[in-house]
Amino acid sequence: QRQMCIRDSSHIVLKLKSGYNIGIELSEISDIKKISSPKEIIEQNNVNDEDSSLPKILLLSTGGTIASKVDYRTGAVTPALTAADLNDAVPEITNIANVDTEVLFSEYSENLQPEHWFEIATRLDSLAKSDYMGIIIAHGTDTMHYTSSFLSFALSGFPIPVALVGSQRSSDRPSSDAAINLIAASKFLVESNTKGIFLVMHHNDNDQTVACHAGTRVRKNHTSKRGAFETMGSDPAFIVTPTLEIKKNIQDEFFKDAKYNPRMKIDTKVALVKYHPGYDPKLIENLIQTGCKAIIFEGTGLGHVGRTMYDVVKNAQENDLFLGMTSQCIDGRVRMTVYESGRDLLELGITPLENMTPETSLVKAMWALGNSKDIDQVRSLMLENIASEF
Amino acid sequence: QRQMCIRDSSHIVLKLKSGYNIGIELSEISDIKKISSPKEIIEQNNVNDEDSSLPKILLLSTGGTIASKVDYRTGAVTPALTAADLNDAVPEITNIANVDTEVLFSEYSENLQPEHWFEIATRLDSLAKSDYMGIIIAHGTDTMHYTSSFLSFALSGFPIPVALVGSQRSSDRPSSDAAINLIAASKFLVESNTKGIFLVMHHNDNDQTVACHAGTRVRKNHTSKRGAFETMGSDPAFIVTPTLEIKKNIQDEFFKDAKYNPRMKIDTKVALVKYHPGYDPKLIENLIQTGCKAIIFEGTGLGHVGRTMYDVVKNAQENDLFLGMTSQCIDGRVRMTVYESGRDLLELGITPLENMTPETSLVKAMWALGNSKDIDQVRSLMLENIASEF
Repeated sequence: QRQMCIRDSSHIVLKLKSGYNIGIELSEISDIKKISSPKEIIEQNNVNDEDSSLPKILLLSTGGTIASKVDYRTGAVTPALTAADLNDAVPEITNIANVDTEVLFSEYSENLQPEHWFEIATRLDSLAKSDYMGIIIAHGTDTMHYTSSFLSFALSGFPIPVALVGSQRSSDRPSSDAAINLIAASKFLVESNTKGIFLVMHHNDNDQTVACHAGTRVRKNHTSKRGAFETMGSDPAFIVTPTLEIKKNIQDEFFKDAKYNPRMKIDTKVALVKYHPGYDPKLIENLIQTGCKAIIFEGTGLGHVGRTMYDVVKNAQENDLFLGMTSQCIDGRVRMTVYESGRDLLELGITPLENMTPETSLVKAMWALGNSKDIDQVRSLMLENIASEF
Repeated sequence: QRQMCIRDSSHIVLKLKSGYNIGIELSEISDIKKISSPKEIIEQNNVNDEDSSLPKILLLSTGGTIASKVDYRTGAVTPALTAADLNDAVPEITNIANVDTEVLFSEYSENLQPEHWFEIATRLDSLAKSDYMGIIIAHGTDTMHYTSSFLSFALSGFPIPVALVGSQRSSDRPSSDAAINLIAASKFLVESNTKGIFLVMHHNDNDQTVACHAGTRVRKNHTSKRGAFETMGSDPAFIVTPTLEIKKNIQDEFFKDAKYNPRMKIDTKVALVKYHPGYDPKLIENLIQTGCKAIIFEGTGLGHVGRTMYDVVKNAQENDLFLGMTSQCIDGRVRMTVYESGRDLLELGITPLENMTPETSLVKAMWALGNSKDIDQVRSLMLENIASEF
């Protein structure tokens, strides 16, 4: 089952049984023999009997690794599986729930745009009164936390729990986390008796624990580890143990207002500005000129930008942009009253966004701009705790 | 020693003995009595006897919290102490080394710019043949890892070990980490028998361990914890234990070429672009038009940007910009051969920067542009492991 392909003019890449690749320099090879050909992968289409006593959940597929296969020709991963394939690939789910499946679209999440968020939110909204006990959204991991943030604000109070589920390794690899994540998500949805938008992924590399992160408090913090996602500043909201028990870590409800209040508009005229030494203040002038309506700063430390930025910040404020401050430290909380720099920036009209992550702050600003009539309402929405973002 | 000030029109802020503040709503207060006045802090100017058998180190001060005091009027922190004050405040150092002190400038590090990096590098370069056994740079923590990256590239092979030292709490607070960091840095410099640029800070909140991070592999990952800095992807290069023993975790030398090769020029025409859903590709056009020469992308996952960016990336490449890819995951390594998106971007001329952090990549690009004659040389410097950045 070792397979081979030529990736550039000077190397051969071998695909090992483990799923990993090794490269060998052509100049180091004296002889190549064909030992065998790869077996064709036989698709099985299990038709599972439904058990009508089980709760119903819906598996909505949007693409990503979880809906992908390894291309054994190149060793690369391409999107292929449908939601139905996915369901068939993990027969254990049929002991937990009756799963309906639906393909919404099929994109890697790096290609998802706010239009896709809107499409997912619209489909979920249409299901608000359905008899599903929970909804799984199969999603690429790259921007999963941006999508979960948007859904959290757009569908505040949504009556059915939602689990975004991805995998870091495609489902036909031995090391895949697709099955364990899907099984844990199903169990979580039917047993946790909670509402909210969660991101359900492998917890760490050492065991079979799965974490259910609040959709507004989570980041992808590793490029390749299965346990790539982390809740910032605290434990995950729920844990699914290896024996599929649900442990609750949070005290409060995910949605601060229990009433379902869909507000799904988006205005993308928001920029995320990561400040650094040597940052050219003219870039902020450009943002103002191109009609940007809000800037989320990823400041340094407790929420700072250099003094060289004060003039353009003042200008942005006078042009009625919403200016929010987060920290590139990622963890912790901005506090702009400790140092002179922070106090100067507060006076210039920057709003500290507490411990909201930069990514969630960005998405929330797009959402707040889409659903507000003026900048005062934007500011007030940005500071209101809607979906456990603070 | 509890102190009080009015911060806004509806609250009173009390400064507690612990150094922390609490706020009380004015409407909740029925009566205020003055119990005592704060004692004036008496400045002591210890003159320490030099022990000529001890090694010599230099403490260069650039500002930051480590060189700050709490203003008991407002509870805020302002820069005040000189390098000499700092030395006097930590008399334990005099048992480890004879410390000369020098103030280079006094700025919080959020206000530092590449000109300041150049000033520090120039002063260090002038000391390359001095008899100092090590050099401490007292520095604000906000952008300390940007400065340490620059010094690592600019002073490749520098013959004397350098420790950037900061503190998360000012030195007149009981919870300050200034003293422990300075003591550990001194011990590290005189005993580790190593060369390199290190960032020496409290390791975590539970004990008295101090970490010596490779200056190119470190990030500030928490806004306020004393153990805010972390080496990405591995253990810190060295650890100073509570009993001041030095434990070495790295196998290789910090500098890949032992010969001292100062290259101190900087060209700041580099932009750091954090990609996200809804990122406006026009912003890249603006960067090209304003004369930007290099873009460091903080892509998603293994190093991706959405398909909506392909045209402007191609345009940037045709305009001879250097385009480097890092990941906003912060930990892990970009790998652009796994998914279609990555392979597309490779074809468009983006250079994957392996596990180099976005911040180090940005600083290295400024340095590479300053010290190269063309874009091929920039690319080759970006991929050369100079100071343990990979």
